[in-house]
Amino acid sequence: MNGFQLYNTTRLVFGKGKVNRLGELISPYIDNILLVYGGGSIKKSGLYNQVKQELASIGATIEELAGIEPNPRLSTINKGIQICRDKNIQFILAVGGGSVIDAAKAIAAGALYPGDVWDFTIQKATITQALPIGTILTLAATGSEMNGGSVITNWETNQKRTMGSKLLYPEFSIIDPALTFTVPRNQTVNGIVDIMSHVFEQYFSQTTSTPLQERFAEGILQTVIENGEKALENGEDYDARANLLLAGTYAMNGTLPTGVEADWATHVIEHEVSAIYDLPHGEGLAILFPNWMKHVYQERVEKFVQYAVRVWSIDSVDKSDDEIALEGIQATRDYFTRIGAPATLSEVGIDHSHFERMADEATQFGDIGYFKKLTKEDVLSILHASI
Amino acid sequence: MNGFQLYNTTRLVFGKGKVNRLGELISPYIDNILLVYGGGSIKKSGLYNQVKQELASIGATIEELAGIEPNPRLSTINKGIQICRDKNIQFILAVGGGSVIDAAKAIAAGALYPGDVWDFTIQKATITQALPIGTILTLAATGSEMNGGSVITNWETNQKRTMGSKLLYPEFSIIDPALTFTVPRNQTVNGIVDIMSHVFEQYFSQTTSTPLQERFAEGILQTVIENGEKALENGEDYDARANLLLAGTYAMNGTLPTGVEADWATHVIEHEVSAIYDLPHGEGLAILFPNWMKHVYQERVEKFVQYAVRVWSIDSVDKSDDEIALEGIQATRDYFTRIGAPATLSEVGIDHSHFERMADEATQFGDIGYFKKLTKEDVLSILHASI
Repeated sequence: MNGFQLYNTTRLVFGKGKVNRLGELISPYIDNILLVYGGGSIKKSGLYNQVKQELASIGATIEELAGIEPNPRLSTINKGIQICRDKNIQFILAVGGGSVIDAAKAIAAGALYPGDVWDFTIQKATITQALPIGTILTLAATGSEMNGGSVITNWETNQKRTMGSKLLYPEFSIIDPALTFTVPRNQTVNGIVDIMSHVFEQYFSQTTSTPLQERFAEGILQTVIENGEKALENGEDYDARANLLLAGTYAMNGTLPTGVEADWATHVIEHEVSAIYDLPHGEGLAILFPNWMKHVYQERVEKFVQYAVRVWSIDSVDKSDDEIALEGIQATRDYFTRIGAPATLSEVGIDHSHFERMADEATQFGDIGYFKKLTKEDVLSILHASI
Repeated sequence: MNGFQLYNTTRLVFGKGKVNRLGELISPYIDNILLVYGGGSIKKSGLYNQVKQELASIGATIEELAGIEPNPRLSTINKGIQICRDKNIQFILAVGGGSVIDAAKAIAAGALYPGDVWDFTIQKATITQALPIGTILTLAATGSEMNGGSVITNWETNQKRTMGSKLLYPEFSIIDPALTFTVPRNQTVNGIVDIMSHVFEQYFSQTTSTPLQERFAEGILQTVIENGEKALENGEDYDARANLLLAGTYAMNGTLPTGVEADWATHVIEHEVSAIYDLPHGEGLAILFPNWMKHVYQERVEKFVQYAVRVWSIDSVDKSDDEIALEGIQATRDYFTRIGAPATLSEVGIDHSHFERMADEATQFGDIGYFKKLTKEDVLSILHASI
């Protein structure tokens, strides 16, 4: 086990009806709140009205930024930053899924920075201050509700990049599983794939002697596998939705990478794909991850054997390690297919024409990943296997 | 799953040599620090000198309170409170195991309260302010390094009671596994039992549909079972010590009780035993817990079947639920015995003469526990089974 720091300052408020705690939680910041949300589903569901009422009941003054995109765009974020400056915004409340929260984080950092917020994604600047934010989560997926990371896309340059800071941890996040009853099937599927992929990135590590972190990771995967299917069968299964949400939060709240060297290469590759094609992140990950697994598993086959046996209950009797590992990888692909995720880039209309550029961008700062360090050629190989 | 709040403000700094971060972590509080520790093992190990050097290097002024007892005593805590008042203490640094940290917490709350600190344990007063504290942990056991709870004993009345507050979470806790290399065998054993017991209290619940919390609990137990034996074989096995420490922290840092109704009856009973006999907490728990299990398992036998199969790999083929559950309970007892923990009160010189008083005290506020609500008669029955 490596050394680490574990420090998570977000207050998670979880359960049915917990949006009624919004007024109390946000009460230190009632002047000039920026309400950030997406495409309008929160208006259909009634959540928008409830939030406005909660805020009105404590006398809060608010501005609004609607229309955050699924891969949140720099141009929209810049609009938010302008509102913050014009209206002296003191707090940002994100109501939505991971994209809305990520946009709110970028706005929070950009509002107090005189330069271009994109600078934070290219290490041209470090976040030294940020507006406080809070969230009401409506989708089990990214885990952004309990960490300091944000992923945004620049559509002028087709670049999708991350920024992060301890200052971007939400002050509070409210999670009511009932708010996710109306999430469409494809978004539930993408969320399931996203959560599982986050675990993969931190589980497939060369770090040894981390049994607790591994058991936690396996527990999250087993919970998602079982409850994902239940939520797809019945979208209003409260416990299935609750278990998915909690698993999604724990997959990215700093629990899994303690003392572990995480990988993240597949995310880097996927970001290059969706930066060009605006593919939902979960679809890209479903296509790429099993192919990454096949490309790298021999670097430490026993970890993939453990994965196969513990997570997928693969029978190991009379089989070689390679066979067991490959059965675990196939079980992953089969599960993704069973829940309706795509298996190839062709299915989602992507051919090889931009592979060179994707591989160049993915490796522009050098080899990527830690389980196996991937060169440009490795990335091309994984992309070609995904056609 | 029930609703819950998850909010843990402690910064955990974990790894070899991390005591060298003390100066930086404590730097906001360099004036008038109270250094609290136990019986002198930190002087033998050299940790005391290192801490003093770190504090000297940032120009901190310090007072000291040595001699905190294994079941920390109200009289000693009152000494610490007096020092805080006399010397205008601004920060308390606890260096030691759970008892030292619990004492530091009680001092931190008592220093800013004009009445008797015992009031917080009998609900006569609520903690509304406390001095900030930090810890350097030297024993895998209580988890007090990352929560707001404290257990103290009043030897005038033979009462052992708890207090707790969000204000008592340490600002930081430093954990260096190498600092636990010299922990004596019996203290390592007691720590193992303590950690497992904390998990039991939160795992054996009547709350359903909490698969993630259950997998986390099982993962902690499996990690402790495996690494406990390794640490006992070789006290200087860094990874075994590290895994035990991390498991101990997670067993009590708020991860397991999210959305779950925990039990805690066995702790209440054990506190009554050790308040009269000054028995190490871990010994009392090792004796009592398997007997509590046998007394209650039929209230929800399937949870004990799950425990037996997942944690102890009990073969369930052709067995009744009762048989499987009882085999899991026996495996628990066998493990405790294998590592050298006592199995009966007689072994540690305790007879039935105070059972009535213990049972009366344990149930003075009504029935205890949630998995099965225990009456005074239930408590007596568990005590008599433990002779």
